[in-house]
Amino acid sequence: MDVEAQAPWRELARITEEGSPQQVEQFLKNLPDGEVAHTLSRLSEEECSQVLTALSPEEAADLVERLSDAQALEVIERLPPQTAAAILDELPSNEQADLIADLERSGAEAILAEMDPAEAADARTLSRYADDVAGGLMVTEFLRYREDATVGEVVEDMRDRADEYRDYDVQYAYVCDRDDRLTGVLRLRDLLLAPRSRPIADLMIRRPESVRDDTSLDDLADFFDRHHYLGVPAADKDGRLVGVVRKAAVDEAWAARQDSDFLKTQGIVGGEELRTMPLGRRASRRLSWLSVNILLNILAASVIAFFQDTLSAVIALAVFLPIISDMSGCSGNQAVAVSLRELSLGLVRPNEMVRVWLKEIGVGLINGAALGLLIGGVAWLWQGNAYLGLVVGVALGLNTMVAVSIGGVVPLVLKRFSVDPAIASGPLLTTVTDMCGFFFILGIATMLLPQLGG
Amino acid sequence: MDVEAQAPWRELARITEEGSPQQVEQFLKNLPDGEVAHTLSRLSEEECSQVLTALSPEEAADLVERLSDAQALEVIERLPPQTAAAILDELPSNEQADLIADLERSGAEAILAEMDPAEAADARTLSRYADDVAGGLMVTEFLRYREDATVGEVVEDMRDRADEYRDYDVQYAYVCDRDDRLTGVLRLRDLLLAPRSRPIADLMIRRPESVRDDTSLDDLADFFDRHHYLGVPAADKDGRLVGVVRKAAVDEAWAARQDSDFLKTQGIVGGEELRTMPLGRRASRRLSWLSVNILLNILAASVIAFFQDTLSAVIALAVFLPIISDMSGCSGNQAVAVSLRELSLGLVRPNEMVRVWLKEIGVGLINGAALGLLIGGVAWLWQGNAYLGLVVGVALGLNTMVAVSIGGVVPLVLKRFSVDPAIASGPLLTTVTDMCGFFFILGIATMLLPQLGG
Repeated sequence: MDVEAQAPWRELARITEEGSPQQVEQFLKNLPDGEVAHTLSRLSEEECSQVLTALSPEEAADLVERLSDAQALEVIERLPPQTAAAILDELPSNEQADLIADLERSGAEAILAEMDPAEAADARTLSRYADDVAGGLMVTEFLRYREDATVGEVVEDMRDRADEYRDYDVQYAYVCDRDDRLTGVLRLRDLLLAPRSRPIADLMIRRPESVRDDTSLDDLADFFDRHHYLGVPAADKDGRLVGVVRKAAVDEAWAARQDSDFLKTQGIVGGEELRTMPLGRRASRRLSWLSVNILLNILAASVIAFFQDTLSAVIALAVFLPIISDMSGCSGNQAVAVSLRELSLGLVRPNEMVRVWLKEIGVGLINGAALGLLIGGVAWLWQGNAYLGLVVGVALGLNTMVAVSIGGVVPLVLKRFSVDPAIASGPLLTTVTDMCGFFFILGIATMLLPQLGG
Repeated sequence: MDVEAQAPWRELARITEEGSPQQVEQFLKNLPDGEVAHTLSRLSEEECSQVLTALSPEEAADLVERLSDAQALEVIERLPPQTAAAILDELPSNEQADLIADLERSGAEAILAEMDPAEAADARTLSRYADDVAGGLMVTEFLRYREDATVGEVVEDMRDRADEYRDYDVQYAYVCDRDDRLTGVLRLRDLLLAPRSRPIADLMIRRPESVRDDTSLDDLADFFDRHHYLGVPAADKDGRLVGVVRKAAVDEAWAARQDSDFLKTQGIVGGEELRTMPLGRRASRRLSWLSVNILLNILAASVIAFFQDTLSAVIALAVFLPIISDMSGCSGNQAVAVSLRELSLGLVRPNEMVRVWLKEIGVGLINGAALGLLIGGVAWLWQGNAYLGLVVGVALGLNTMVAVSIGGVVPLVLKRFSVDPAIASGPLLTTVTDMCGFFFILGIATMLLPQLGG
């Protein structure tokens, strides 16, 4: 196709093959914003590795940061350990650690052996933390001074190591005592106005806010909601300063979790899926979720088998079975979505099931009545039998109330029992609402069989 | 209930009623992180207004920033214009503008009239921008100096206005010419090392990166992906510096969009829903989406009505209709989720339909075969008729391929025609896959009616 021939990834692969590193760099610089991620994602892993090898480690690290986690991992795995190590040396410490943690053990060791020893030691320590606690999100690149340093010494140090500090995203320096315990923070701006001979202990803000290295992502998000800081120092259990958690890292991790929750509700479980991944992996991951669902579906449909006689007497009912199932699923999913969101915003607690249920049953009454009247009217008009309308309408109305109740409450219950509500709410909801729905319509029909002409 | 009696929102309402402003402030300070949003969300609007009135405008503004957009709006609407104006004066300019833009026109005018005239003028200008362009996301609180200023003058100004600048989240000052056009940026750190008499024009970084005020959220996200900045200056069409877009604002807007996309895919359309909102509004918003869906469902089910004779001959088929419908929905939704995500990450373009379809059909073949075999086997075992197994299995297998194809491609097509894929993909998918699925199972069954014993 035309698109393929002039595609930037073809061009990039060609330049990497034939051109100089400068040309590769220039080509990437000239790509419009937003085209870079797309272009890189379309390269084969082989080609992507070639591009990274052609660039300087700094440039390559910039690119790696813009790949998706899954793609970055695959590319790093294919590079010779030495090249991989040079690139990892240039990444911020939290991203180093994420990659090291996700790499296969032997691969990780080979790369760590080639890295700058200080960076490698950092990466080892950080990769032991979970992804979603302060320790896994913090960086170890920050300014740290002793209490007894003077303004002049600090300014001196900043001048001498300006290159190294250039990428540090901080407006603050952290001040520690002899045991590495945090005692204050220093606003760089305050250094501007102070005489050089003054000890920084006089300028620093004492007893600064800090977090423990095992603080959860939820608590960190709340912390940054409360405090207008761009970063917060993190201390280990002995109170030693071990890193700085940037607000940006917390925001990013939060967005990534929302993203993964969204994928899970839609049945993409076990990590992100990109269409550049191998077919077998994509198919089997999706299938693992589908196979649980089909068993639940069979379970739900067995209710229909139980009422087979009623169904063969009034075959028109069969038309309404999928409608009841689908509409109850829709109503229930709305309630699930609101609960998941309120849970993630901290606006509802897992023990507030009664309150949520009361709020949902109101919606269920109104919408159940509206949908029941509509579908009942349709059934009546279609078959000219008011009783059929009654059966179908009452069944959908009742089941809408069941669906919103379950949809609203189930995420809270799952959360309480530490089951991921994003994964499990949907299947649980549809199974129960299907069973109830089929039972309502076929059960009521069985009672009214004579009136239905069966 | 017990929970209600000792609940922090009851306590807060009581203290607001009976206590001093200091007690209210103290109570809020003492709430654990993460409890504040929850507590505020549970107050009635009346009570929430009372709390805000009791606090100083600065404290109140801090609280307003932590409410959800919908709740902040309702609370501000209920305050006397003077109180509301005092609080708005303390908000960052982009949040001021968001609130002003969302307020009813007359209410907005009343509040603007009471605000600090400079703040009000800013808010008016900013509220004209769309929410998701640079102009709507930028703040007007930033440091701006003329090219001919000296280091000494800048340091002087920073000392004099330290209070005002305290909340500015910037490490940079922006340097403009006489026509307010941006000519450079100044790293505050560089001021540390420079003699006071030096003109800042010597220190500043020339030709800095900047964005137009109409730059879209997508392009801003890409910009911050490419550049490790915490903020970027924004210029109007004449090149005049009008504000600074912070990376944090872009990240937040991005997360908000993902959040709203998630709600839309689950059928919460027309803005966020909180359970604290009035029942009528919650029910009618959900119903507007459900009523479209029920009509599409009736359309799809009409295929079943068409095959009524086949169905009454082989009543066992009725058990499999909801299974086919539901499983195809699941498979299709997985493909929708991957496409929505790849679209939002810029990893796929709306014109790459053929590529996406080829990637999906592979998954469809594998998973269709697996699911078809499973359900076919169940049908065979249940009724002891291999032909029934064949009909059901082939129908589900074929329809899985239809579902992943439609699910993968539909979001791209909708995006291309500028229809919101998060809202419309799901209903379109289920309608088409239901119709195809019912057609496959009942059509094949009609052909094999003698073998099915019908």
